[in-house]
Amino acid sequence: MDELIDIAIIGGGPAGMSAALNAHVRNKSVKIFTGKHKDNGLFKAECVDNYLGMPDVPGDVFLETCRKHIEHRGIKAVVGRVLSIMPMGTQFYISSGPEVYSSRAIILASGVVMQTAYTGEQELLGRGVSYCATCDGMLYRNKKVVVVAKNDEAVHESNFLNEIGCSVTVISDGRDFDELSADIQVIPGKKLEIRGDDKVEGISIDGEQLDCQGVFILRKSIAMSTLMPSIELTDGHISVDRGMATSVPGVYAAGDCTGRPYQVAKAVGEGQMAALSAVEYLDNLK
Amino acid sequence: MDELIDIAIIGGGPAGMSAALNAHVRNKSVKIFTGKHKDNGLFKAECVDNYLGMPDVPGDVFLETCRKHIEHRGIKAVVGRVLSIMPMGTQFYISSGPEVYSSRAIILASGVVMQTAYTGEQELLGRGVSYCATCDGMLYRNKKVVVVAKNDEAVHESNFLNEIGCSVTVISDGRDFDELSADIQVIPGKKLEIRGDDKVEGISIDGEQLDCQGVFILRKSIAMSTLMPSIELTDGHISVDRGMATSVPGVYAAGDCTGRPYQVAKAVGEGQMAALSAVEYLDNLK
Repeated sequence: MDELIDIAIIGGGPAGMSAALNAHVRNKSVKIFTGKHKDNGLFKAECVDNYLGMPDVPGDVFLETCRKHIEHRGIKAVVGRVLSIMPMGTQFYISSGPEVYSSRAIILASGVVMQTAYTGEQELLGRGVSYCATCDGMLYRNKKVVVVAKNDEAVHESNFLNEIGCSVTVISDGRDFDELSADIQVIPGKKLEIRGDDKVEGISIDGEQLDCQGVFILRKSIAMSTLMPSIELTDGHISVDRGMATSVPGVYAAGDCTGRPYQVAKAVGEGQMAALSAVEYLDNLK
Repeated sequence: MDELIDIAIIGGGPAGMSAALNAHVRNKSVKIFTGKHKDNGLFKAECVDNYLGMPDVPGDVFLETCRKHIEHRGIKAVVGRVLSIMPMGTQFYISSGPEVYSSRAIILASGVVMQTAYTGEQELLGRGVSYCATCDGMLYRNKKVVVVAKNDEAVHESNFLNEIGCSVTVISDGRDFDELSADIQVIPGKKLEIRGDDKVEGISIDGEQLDCQGVFILRKSIAMSTLMPSIELTDGHISVDRGMATSVPGVYAAGDCTGRPYQVAKAVGEGQMAALSAVEYLDNLK
C-alpha cells in the first residue's frame, strides 16, 4: 500500500481536477483516480462556450488544457476504475484494480453513470458477479465465465481469464475485439439476466440460456450504490449540503454526481467548494 | 424606461458575468448592472491559479478576459450603482442613478459589502439620508448638505449639489479631490454619527458637530438590506438553496454575496446555476 493520501479524488473530469487543484493549493496531498479522458462525455463536445474566460473551446482541448494545468502543479493521477471505497475509522481504503490505497478524506467526482443494473446483478454481486477479473479471476480457474464487455479493458481482462484457465465467453456490445485470444467465443447480446439462487448459475442472453459460474461485468464506471453503499442518494444523485458534504463524514462530492445541471462551470465550482470543505475537515481532525 | 429585460444581473464580477453568459446561451435577454472592474477586489489580485484551465492569470487580466468573452457574445452592461430593486407583481424595477429599468427575474451577484452602517443611517434613510445626489439633490436646494465620499462619483455628485445651490461639505476618506469645485469645503473624518429625530439635523464628525439637512453617503455599493429589504439573509449573506433561489420568487443569487469561500470558481459555478434556475423560472411563468 502507498503512503496515506490526504484527499483521494474519485474522478478526473472538471469537478475532480478543480478539487485537486484547490486542495493542492491548500497544501494537502492529493491523488486523482480517473478513467481515460476520451471516455468523458465532454471529450466529444464540439464546443464549450459557457465556461467564463475560455470562449469557444472544443471539449477535448478543454480537458487537455485542464489536465496540463494540474499536471504542471505536480498532481498525480492513477488511471483505472475504482472498485470500492471502504470507510475504516478515520481512514478510507480505495481499491483500484488489484491495488489498495488509503486516504484521510474522499471527494467523489465520478460523474453520472448512465446505466441500470442487470436483473440478478445486485443480488449476486460477490457470489459469482464481479467487476474486476484481475481481482477475482483466480476464484474461477477451470470454470465457465462470461464477460460483459463495456469498457476498453474488457479485451485484456478476458485474455487474462483465458490464460489462467477459465472457459471464457464474451458478450459484445459491438466494440473492436481484434486483440482477443482466438480461444475466446464472442457472442452479441443486449438483454441480459443473471440467474442463480445463492450463487451464479447462468445467464440469459436475449432469451438464450448459457450456464456459467462467473459473470464479469466490465463497465466504464461502477454505480455509486456499489462503490460506497453507505452513502445517501437523492433521485440517484449523491445528497450534498451547500458545502458539498455527503452523509458520510470525511466524504465530499462535486460535479454531475451531485445532480443537474451537468455542466462544466457548476462542476468546477463544486470541485473547489468540496476541496475547501475537505481541507477544513482535515484541519479540524488534528 | 427601457424594454423589459428577461434577467437583470446585479454585479459584473465573475458570478455576474458567468450568469449573463449562461442565460444568454439559453436565449434570454440579459443586462448586467456593474461597478467598474478596477473596484473589484480581484482586480488587484497578483495571480489567480485555482480556476481550472486558466493557470497563473493576474486578476486584472482575468477580469478583462472574461469581459471580452461576454462582450463578444453581445451582452450589454450598465455601469453605475444600483440603488434599489423593487418587486412589483411578476416584474422588478431596478433603479440605477436616475434611470429605472424593468426585468422579469433578478440575479444578485453583488459581492460582499465590507461596511457597517453609520449610527442613524438606517433610521434616517429617506428622511435626509440619501445614496444618490443626482436622484435626490433637488430636495436640498439652498440647504446645507454633507457628502460622505467613498466612491469615484463623489466629486461629480458634490459638484452637482453645489451647482444646484446646496451648501456642500465633503467628508474625505483621503481620496483625490482635484476636480472638486473651489466653493466646497473638504474636511477629514472617520467616525461619523448622523443626528436627528424625524429627519436629519446634523452629523457628528470625529466628535465635532456640524448642522445639516441632508447627508449623501456615496459608497461603492449599497448594502443588500437596503437594496432589497425583503430578502432573507443568513449571517449577512443572502440565503440560497442548492439551485441558488433566494427567499423572493424570481430572485436568484450567486458568488460572494451567498457566502464563503470568496473564490472565482465557486462564483462562476454559482453564476451558471443561478442562470439556469432563472431560465427555468421564466419558462414556467409562460
